[in-house]
Amino acid sequence: MAMYRSVFLYLTILFLSFSSCDQYTGELKVLNAEDYGISKVNDATPILRKVLNDSKNSGINKIIFPKGEYHFYDEKAIEKYCAVSNNDNGLKRIAFQLEGFDQLEIDANGSSFVFHGLIVPFNIENSSNITIKNLSVDYDKPFYGQGEVVSVNPDDHTFDLKIADDWEYVIHENNLYFKNARDVLNIQRNIWFDPETKSPVYNVDAYQIDPWNKWINDNYEAYEVEEGIVRIKQDIAKLPEKGWFFVCKGDKNTRLVPGFRIYDAANITLENITIYHSGAMGLIAEKSENIFMNGLNVHLKENSERIVSTVADATHFVNCKGLVRFENCTFKNMLDDATNVHGIYTKLTDIVDSYTIGVKTIHYQQWGFDFASAGDTVLLSNPQTLEAYKKLVVQDVKNLNEEYMELTFSEKIDDIAMLNSGVENISWQADMIMRNCNVDQNRARSILISTRGDVLVEDCYFSSMMAAILFAGDMNYWFESGPVRNVTIRNNTFENHCSGGKGNTVFKIDPIIPNPDKKEDYFHHNIKITNNTIRTFDRGILHALSVKNLTFSNNIIQQTTDLPPLNPDKPVIKIEHCKGVKIEGNEYNWDKAADVSADSESIEHINFNNNKGFENDIQILTE
Amino acid sequence: MAMYRSVFLYLTILFLSFSSCDQYTGELKVLNAEDYGISKVNDATPILRKVLNDSKNSGINKIIFPKGEYHFYDEKAIEKYCAVSNNDNGLKRIAFQLEGFDQLEIDANGSSFVFHGLIVPFNIENSSNITIKNLSVDYDKPFYGQGEVVSVNPDDHTFDLKIADDWEYVIHENNLYFKNARDVLNIQRNIWFDPETKSPVYNVDAYQIDPWNKWINDNYEAYEVEEGIVRIKQDIAKLPEKGWFFVCKGDKNTRLVPGFRIYDAANITLENITIYHSGAMGLIAEKSENIFMNGLNVHLKENSERIVSTVADATHFVNCKGLVRFENCTFKNMLDDATNVHGIYTKLTDIVDSYTIGVKTIHYQQWGFDFASAGDTVLLSNPQTLEAYKKLVVQDVKNLNEEYMELTFSEKIDDIAMLNSGVENISWQADMIMRNCNVDQNRARSILISTRGDVLVEDCYFSSMMAAILFAGDMNYWFESGPVRNVTIRNNTFENHCSGGKGNTVFKIDPIIPNPDKKEDYFHHNIKITNNTIRTFDRGILHALSVKNLTFSNNIIQQTTDLPPLNPDKPVIKIEHCKGVKIEGNEYNWDKAADVSADSESIEHINFNNNKGFENDIQILTE
Repeated sequence: MAMYRSVFLYLTILFLSFSSCDQYTGELKVLNAEDYGISKVNDATPILRKVLNDSKNSGINKIIFPKGEYHFYDEKAIEKYCAVSNNDNGLKRIAFQLEGFDQLEIDANGSSFVFHGLIVPFNIENSSNITIKNLSVDYDKPFYGQGEVVSVNPDDHTFDLKIADDWEYVIHENNLYFKNARDVLNIQRNIWFDPETKSPVYNVDAYQIDPWNKWINDNYEAYEVEEGIVRIKQDIAKLPEKGWFFVCKGDKNTRLVPGFRIYDAANITLENITIYHSGAMGLIAEKSENIFMNGLNVHLKENSERIVSTVADATHFVNCKGLVRFENCTFKNMLDDATNVHGIYTKLTDIVDSYTIGVKTIHYQQWGFDFASAGDTVLLSNPQTLEAYKKLVVQDVKNLNEEYMELTFSEKIDDIAMLNSGVENISWQADMIMRNCNVDQNRARSILISTRGDVLVEDCYFSSMMAAILFAGDMNYWFESGPVRNVTIRNNTFENHCSGGKGNTVFKIDPIIPNPDKKEDYFHHNIKITNNTIRTFDRGILHALSVKNLTFSNNIIQQTTDLPPLNPDKPVIKIEHCKGVKIEGNEYNWDKAADVSADSESIEHINFNNNKGFENDIQILTE
Repeated sequence: MAMYRSVFLYLTILFLSFSSCDQYTGELKVLNAEDYGISKVNDATPILRKVLNDSKNSGINKIIFPKGEYHFYDEKAIEKYCAVSNNDNGLKRIAFQLEGFDQLEIDANGSSFVFHGLIVPFNIENSSNITIKNLSVDYDKPFYGQGEVVSVNPDDHTFDLKIADDWEYVIHENNLYFKNARDVLNIQRNIWFDPETKSPVYNVDAYQIDPWNKWINDNYEAYEVEEGIVRIKQDIAKLPEKGWFFVCKGDKNTRLVPGFRIYDAANITLENITIYHSGAMGLIAEKSENIFMNGLNVHLKENSERIVSTVADATHFVNCKGLVRFENCTFKNMLDDATNVHGIYTKLTDIVDSYTIGVKTIHYQQWGFDFASAGDTVLLSNPQTLEAYKKLVVQDVKNLNEEYMELTFSEKIDDIAMLNSGVENISWQADMIMRNCNVDQNRARSILISTRGDVLVEDCYFSSMMAAILFAGDMNYWFESGPVRNVTIRNNTFENHCSGGKGNTVFKIDPIIPNPDKKEDYFHHNIKITNNTIRTFDRGILHALSVKNLTFSNNIIQQTTDLPPLNPDKPVIKIEHCKGVKIEGNEYNWDKAADVSADSESIEHINFNNNKGFENDIQILTE
């Protein structure tokens, strides 16, 4: 316990020090955007530009908007080429271009900001001590396609979609396309939502029309029955039910305009902000320090016809440092996770000279990522075992193109650096607190944690169609680093996770290790899941691979009958290649005792005590 | 004649002064790239980078390559976002990144430079006094699709294409796609070449499979008969003949990697350079001054399987100034024109304040063009009549995004500026000399001239499937400015132009004027076409609209029987809304006398004397 106590002391100190860092103590110079007549124009973008320019030039540190509805069009917005990790790179039109600001608060007093076209609402870059509060973000037109099932005909395996006025569509050669801001999108990446629960439907995998197939037009045919009614004929997925919402975002350029982009910034506070929609993630922060979200919400607008909020993750943090802190946030109806705090593994492809390696960003949505600067510390890891083998301090970086860069070190590396190694920047690893938040009704997971910082998740409610909390890490697909070193998940409620059908577990710790080395090396360290309430219709609760010091204790697991189990034969807890495991004081209330499985190596290292409703013995997993 | 004599004196002076401007008189510091081992590596890109860096840092002004074959891959090339007018904008990987150089010569001694992937061979930017000579440019893989007709079956209206190893293809849902460097390309923008003439086939329009249709997959079906043999079934175009080459470049991103990009540069000499292929234009120059091409050639490599050189224009000049000079150049087998020297009309969309207008670049391939700087003079023109009504000096420019910018003037404009006016930058208008050049076997025109500078085209050979020389200008489709003010075309040979079938004439002067004002205002001025030999199978020689002072004199027109006439009833010369026209001393050798038609307004202003083989009277055109 001593270690954890010291960790929380540290987190508390961090919290206190950070809380005070956005309190500006100098003279407050306030600008009222209404003095520029911003409420009197159709397109507020040009006036906003003037407001921001004047603020910068005259040292304004607070901009206020009277409560109202403001419309921002892309037509006269400034534009900048932005590489945005985990989103789509490109020229971005930007409304609030907050670049080179220090000490600025924007208070919109509860205003609605409505965006028109391909425009990024907020870009916060090379700035510090920025607070934005009391506003909502929405778009006039949705960045995805949607239709409601109005009839189903099992005889010819068709269903009819009613497409509401908010969406323009076109049928071409029996394929359905929705019109986007500048393009058409096909029906790839589709999913179904239930109008009652406003969530992805139960076992939705069985109803998706091959959503990742590059040539999706192979799989179905679309006909217009009458204006606004489209009949879909296909025979590879189960037929939907009347009333369900079909949702798709297409195969290309689905992440062009995030709601908030934060890059190369520090001490950013977002408070009482609701993102109703965005054409990418709700918030993406890269290489930034200390981000505080208090009441940053992503959810549907009341009475909206739309069933989707952000078309990708609500929030996402790549190689941030300091503290990423969520308080009192609600994240619902996204087409991806509520958050993912991670780093990036680049791949070592060249030994350029004795002191220099060439590395590549492999996943195309990491191209252009500002991976390292002089002075940063990087770790080299074996791509087969994910085991770190060398720590190095970067002396120089040459970014040659978005895929390839050269890192020079002060020490010789040609004798030790191995080709294909993963290279990870450990100078940029955030601590994270998520407290009193609510994640619900979204596609994908609730949260992903892959940071070496100290992490505390408490007093939250989670209910997502895949895992609640995923600890990943891989060097062959997503290239998202890295291991965790200190995570506590406590006093949360988890409800009916894993309803989508992929065979997930509520807590999933599964780094992808191509050739695990069965020696004393573990990818993740120190994960504690304690005092949580887990209400679930299915069996799989915890799957842990390659963890040193894993505690699953004092959790209450309650069976629900809300949905039929999808994987009734899955072990409740499955442990592989772990050491220092404690499964203690848990209570399992189900019609069948909880079974725990572990491989022969891990089983010796499990403290399994005082659990109620569990089988007495741990099963040995066979390879 | 006095005016022309003074013009040629001026051109001669320009020529002499320019000829000497690239003679460097300081101490010559030479770097041999072989000292870096550049001939010993598979990928010369990284070494080239060092060579250029070192050259810049140590004031090298001549870099030599020993004669050899050098390969440049895109993998480790530097990259930069470039907006490239009349090409596709985007991040560009670049091999020879010549940015910020003054006084540099690169002499490759007859070397072959072969490029691999999406890489721009030469980017010359913010540089002056640069000479590049004695090299060829080629790519390992073609940026277009090609197949040879091996059989034709009129019964089911099919033909079979044999696709050579240089091209990878895929058939999907009965559509043919060729694989490109990073993508697949469909068969939109297709054309046919004749293996004998290596030119587009006679009346090729009749054989194209609806090349501009967005949904080209409507129009045909493709099947693989055996590996490398693809059967095409369609019923909208005439069947090709056995042996013909089918060529296509697809509908998207067809102009990503020009051979030479020149922007914001001055005094550039390209000498003894052959471009065998490029994935865009061969050379595109924007906002640059004095460009001298001596033996800049674009044509097929001997014994190559490919039938296409550059997939777009051989060369192209947008808002350049000083002198654009071609000597001894050969341009063959491009999929577009040999050159086009023009400016850009932006569109006035906003009166921002009393001194400021907002303008847009309308054509997407002009987005991001560096239209104007402080100190430039712009002209405002009426979009209905194309008549200029106001000259203004730019005081300030704000480029907000690639489509929209604001221009501020020192004088008030809100009372005179009309919305939708064309705005043209007349500070950047090049003189042009093209001498002893050869344009042949390409799709589209030979050359387009739209510059206010002095232009001389002499001692050239032209043979293209559309017009030989087009004088355009419009504010509603291409938005290419502008009027010419002094052009002489003399002592050239023109052969069998307009074989493609679009009803062109050899000389085509047709600005698009939506509502011509029939008063004393003419778009183009001072065009003289004299002492040329025109060998042609068809009737239409000259169509002139809106020219003041047009001379067509002492030309010999010889009928050929190489091809059947496509438009035997077209007037040989057609004059509309012109003044000061001379048609004198021409000789027309044909089995039927040449007819000249003119509208009633122009007919009074035509001197029609001493022509042989012409009808006696000019016909009056009816509206």
